[in-house]
Amino acid sequence: MNKPVVVLGAGGHASVLIDILMQLNIDILGVVSKEKPCENGIYRGIPWYKNDEDVLLFDKSTVLLVNGIGSMPGNAVRYKVHSKFKQLGYSFCSVISPKAIVSSFIRLEEGIQIMPGCIVNTNVAVGEGTILNSGAIIEHDCIIGKHNHIAPGVVLSGSVITDDFVHIGTGAQVIQGIRIGEYTLVGAGATVTKNLDSNKTLYVAKPFLR
Amino acid sequence: MNKPVVVLGAGGHASVLIDILMQLNIDILGVVSKEKPCENGIYRGIPWYKNDEDVLLFDKSTVLLVNGIGSMPGNAVRYKVHSKFKQLGYSFCSVISPKAIVSSFIRLEEGIQIMPGCIVNTNVAVGEGTILNSGAIIEHDCIIGKHNHIAPGVVLSGSVITDDFVHIGTGAQVIQGIRIGEYTLVGAGATVTKNLDSNKTLYVAKPFLR
Amino acid sequence: MNKPVVVLGAGGHASVLIDILMQLNIDILGVVSKEKPCENGIYRGIPWYKNDEDVLLFDKSTVLLVNGIGSMPGNAVRYKVHSKFKQLGYSFCSVISPKAIVSSFIRLEEGIQIMPGCIVNTNVAVGEGTILNSGAIIEHDCIIGKHNHIAPGVVLSGSVITDDFVHIGTGAQVIQGIRIGEYTLVGAGATVTKNLDSNKTLYVAKPFLR
Repeated sequence: MNKPVVVLGAGGHASVLIDILMQLNIDILGVVSKEKPCENGIYRGIPWYKNDEDVLLFDKSTVLLVNGIGSMPGNAVRYKVHSKFKQLGYSFCSVISPKAIVSSFIRLEEGIQIMPGCIVNTNVAVGEGTILNSGAIIEHDCIIGKHNHIAPGVVLSGSVITDDFVHIGTGAQVIQGIRIGEYTLVGAGATVTKNLDSNKTLYVAKPFLR
Repeated sequence: MNKPVVVLGAGGHASVLIDILMQLNIDILGVVSKEKPCENGIYRGIPWYKNDEDVLLFDKSTVLLVNGIGSMPGNAVRYKVHSKFKQLGYSFCSVISPKAIVSSFIRLEEGIQIMPGCIVNTNVAVGEGTILNSGAIIEHDCIIGKHNHIAPGVVLSGSVITDDFVHIGTGAQVIQGIRIGEYTLVGAGATVTKNLDSNKTLYVAKPFLR
Repeated sequence: MNKPVVVLGAGGHASVLIDILMQLNIDILGVVSKEKPCENGIYRGIPWYKNDEDVLLFDKSTVLLVNGIGSMPGNAVRYKVHSKFKQLGYSFCSVISPKAIVSSFIRLEEGIQIMPGCIVNTNVAVGEGTILNSGAIIEHDCIIGKHNHIAPGVVLSGSVITDDFVHIGTGAQVIQGIRIGEYTLVGAGATVTKNLDSNKTLYVAKPFLR
C-alpha cells in the first residue's frame, strides 16, 4: 500500500508528477506553493497550502513528500527544499511513470523521478533526488549521481557516469563510457564525446538563421 | 462509436495513419489518391478513389476525413486539402496512436494527428490540423499552433509556444519558454535557445565529413 | 513455441537482450564469454560457457543463438561471430522488446534486435543482424541494410536507405529520403541532410566549452 503524498510546488513539473500520481492511484493530500495553483484541470480539487511550514501539519511517519519543484540550471531551490525536509525527518517518494520503460535490474536511491516515456536499461544506478525526464534514454550500466536533471529527450549511451548536481539539457547526447564532473552543465542539443570536468558548461555549436 | 473514415492521400504518412486506424478498429471506407496506392500489405483491400471529388460520394454527416498528406517545408498541399473540405462542410478526425503517451489534461482542436511513441504532457494545447510525429516529446504547458508539423524525435521543453504553420524538423530541440513565430522553419537537428520571428529558417550548425 | 537460446557475449548489450528474453519467457541455456559475467542481478543463475567452441555442445536444430556482442565503430567482432556460426549451420534469433513500438507491416531478416522503446513504422525493411537500439525512431518506408547499428535515440525520417555495415551514432538524425553508403559512420548527434557515400565519417559540428 502506497503512503499518501504531499507535493511541494505547483508549476509545470509538479503538474506532470501529479498526473503520474493519479495514474498510480496515490492519494494526494495537498500541494504546497506560495502562489495559488493555476485552476486548470489537474490542480482542481487538490487542497492548497501556502507555506512550506504547512508541511509540518503532516506526520512525517505517515506521509511522503514529492519534490515538484522544477530543475533549472543555476537554480538551487529544488535541492534546498529536499535538504530542508530531509533534515526535518521527512522522506521523499520516488515517482515512476507507468508509461516509462524501466528495467527491473536497476538501483534507485530515494526521491527519484522517472517521467513518461523515459527508457532506463539494465544495471543503471540513479542517485537521490534525480530527475530522469520525459523520453530520456539511459542505456545499460550508466551511473547517475545525486540531484541530476537529465532533461527531456537526452540520450546517455552505455556506461556513462555523471557526478552529483549535473544538468544535461534538452535533447543532448553523450557517447559510451563518458564521465561528467559535478555541477557541470551540458547545454540543450550538445553532443558529449569527451570527459567533462566539474563546474564546466558545454554549449551546442550555434545554428544559423536565414 | 467512432464514425467511419475516408483517408486523403496514399503515401508514407497515410500508411502510418492507416496502421493506427486499424489498431483502433476504425472502419476505413477508402483512400483518395491520384496515384494507385503501392500494393504493399497495408493498402491491400482498401477501396481506392482517384479524384478529390470522389469524396463527395460520402455523406459529410456520417463520415470523417483523415488528412493523410504528409507535411514538407514549403509545400502547402496538406493545408489546402484541409481548407477545401472544411469549406465543403466535412470534418476531420483526430488520429491518436494508442502507442502514444498522452496526458488526459490537454486540449486538442480538430484533425490533430499524434503518431506512435509521441509523448504529450499535462496542460498542452494543440491547434487544428497539426501533426505531432513519431516519438516527438511535447512537455507540459506547450501551446502548439494550427497546421504545425512537429517532426519525428523533436523535443519541445516546457511552455514552448509555436504560432500557426510552424515546421520543426526531425530531431530538433527547443528550450523552455521559447516562442516561435508563424511560418518559421526549424531545420532538422537544430537547437532553439532564443525566440524566433515569423517566416525565418534556422539551420543546424554544419557537421563535417571525413 | 519459442526455441531456447544461447547468448554470445556477456557485457552491457547482452544484458539488455537477456532482460528482453526474460520478459518474453524465452529459455536461456547459457551465455558464452571469455570473461566471467559480472555477478550483478541479471546474469545470476545463467550457466556460463567460456569458449566459443562450447556453442557446439548445443544442437543447431534445437537452439537459436543471440548475438549479444555490442557494436562499436571500427570493431568487427560482432559480425565475425555472426558469420562464423552461420557457416556452422546455426541460426540467429531476432529479439524484439515487448516495449518497442513495431508496426505489423514490416519485413525483418534473421537476427534483428529491436531494443526497448524503439519505434518502427509501416513498411520498413531491416537487414540481417542489424541492431535498432533503444528509443531509435525508424519512420515509414525506411530500408535498413545488413549488420547496421542504429544507435540509441537516432531518428531516421521517412524513406531513408542505409546500405550494409552502416553505423549511425547516438542521437543522430537523418532527413527524409537520404541514402547512406556501406561502412559509413554517422557520428553521435550529427544531422544528415545530404546523401553520404560509402566508407565516410560524418562528425557533428563541435560544441564549445566554458
